[in-house]
Amino acid sequence: MTTDTFAKQMTVKFRVGKRLITLCGIAKGAGMIAPNLATMLVFIMSDANITQGALNKALKIATDDSFNCITVDGCMSTNDTVCLLANGASRNNLIGKGKYFKFFLKALHIVCLELAKMIINDAEGATKFIQIKVDKAGSVTEAKKVALSIANSNLFKTAMYGQNSNFGRIIAAVGSSGIDVKEKDIKINVSPLTKKDINVKVLLNRGNSHAVVYTSDLTPQYIKINAEYN
Amino acid sequence: MTTDTFAKQMTVKFRVGKRLITLCGIAKGAGMIAPNLATMLVFIMSDANITQGALNKALKIATDDSFNCITVDGCMSTNDTVCLLANGASRNNLIGKGKYFKFFLKALHIVCLELAKMIINDAEGATKFIQIKVDKAGSVTEAKKVALSIANSNLFKTAMYGQNSNFGRIIAAVGSSGIDVKEKDIKINVSPLTKKDINVKVLLNRGNSHAVVYTSDLTPQYIKINAEYN
Repeated sequence: MTTDTFAKQMTVKFRVGKRLITLCGIAKGAGMIAPNLATMLVFIMSDANITQGALNKALKIATDDSFNCITVDGCMSTNDTVCLLANGASRNNLIGKGKYFKFFLKALHIVCLELAKMIINDAEGATKFIQIKVDKAGSVTEAKKVALSIANSNLFKTAMYGQNSNFGRIIAAVGSSGIDVKEKDIKINVSPLTKKDINVKVLLNRGNSHAVVYTSDLTPQYIKINAEYN
Repeated sequence: MTTDTFAKQMTVKFRVGKRLITLCGIAKGAGMIAPNLATMLVFIMSDANITQGALNKALKIATDDSFNCITVDGCMSTNDTVCLLANGASRNNLIGKGKYFKFFLKALHIVCLELAKMIINDAEGATKFIQIKVDKAGSVTEAKKVALSIANSNLFKTAMYGQNSNFGRIIAAVGSSGIDVKEKDIKINVSPLTKKDINVKVLLNRGNSHAVVYTSDLTPQYIKINAEYN
């Protein structure tokens, strides 16, 4: 059984010389979604002719910047799979390093990020799609840690559901992330809460790194689904 | 404004020689409750004659085993206070070390633990009072880490609300705590879910340490309260 409410698929095409290459991905997932391990199944297929090393490297980079940047409920799972297959049927010149690797990576990143966003758009019981960008952080790791601390705060998520501009909860989540940041240095910008898509931007004034994380709100419907699901 | 629904107070009396000593505590707190920092105010007063060192030591130990063992929503706050005052009015022989310190600590621990449990009993929107005991852990820190991972899992908390025996969620929370534990070594025991008071016992088979954490379920009413609260 699944709680997904729509099919998640994404296709990107690009050229290597005269050969057209297709990358097509499908995904399943709606709850028990957190970075690194989620109840998520993703299968991406391509006809590219590409070395195994390049394929592994591209998948690692693209996954870190997509599926590892989403959280529905902060709950990890044991069923996480991202699978990338390439059979070489397009007969392009073999992709290894260089500009064609960059093309492939770009296409793969688009497929992964769009599928990851679809999972958040289909998050169990959600009424909001929330992008949290933490900027001016000391490192990417730090930026992601702060972004996830906000994204996984039940009080932040319920405020988003209630269209409640209680931004003290964002500050509290930044503080509880454990980063040594000064209150007076933090700048917070939140787009209008009446829309479905919400953008939260947090500036830490500690450096020049940033990270983006996607999440949903926490709603009575999420509880209903998971109180009943066996 | 507060979301507390009842007054939280606890009194314990004990004797030092012929002198009767009273310890009386009052607490406020219902949401944004997590170990180390909570939206919680606790004031404990005593007429004991006790050294400042003994008072500090007793408060540290009693707090670790009470207020730092409760979580409602895993959300830290900036407003945490536990305050212990003793004015010496009972004119007992000065308490420093030894058996009278143990008496005082015992009394203080009872006051703190009962107040902490009252906070969980009054947790925002809760229908369940849940005790999670992790035993046979490699250390107390490890036991507490696993217990808090379960207690803060939204999927565990919604299952408790739904009286849903989906114990895979407990296993998943143990796994996502990061402790290197083998699935076949874990034993889980859960009391009947139809009752208000739920006991969860998890054995890790890694050592002889244990920890107890108290939490509540996650309900639509919690979301309603926090979607609206400004």
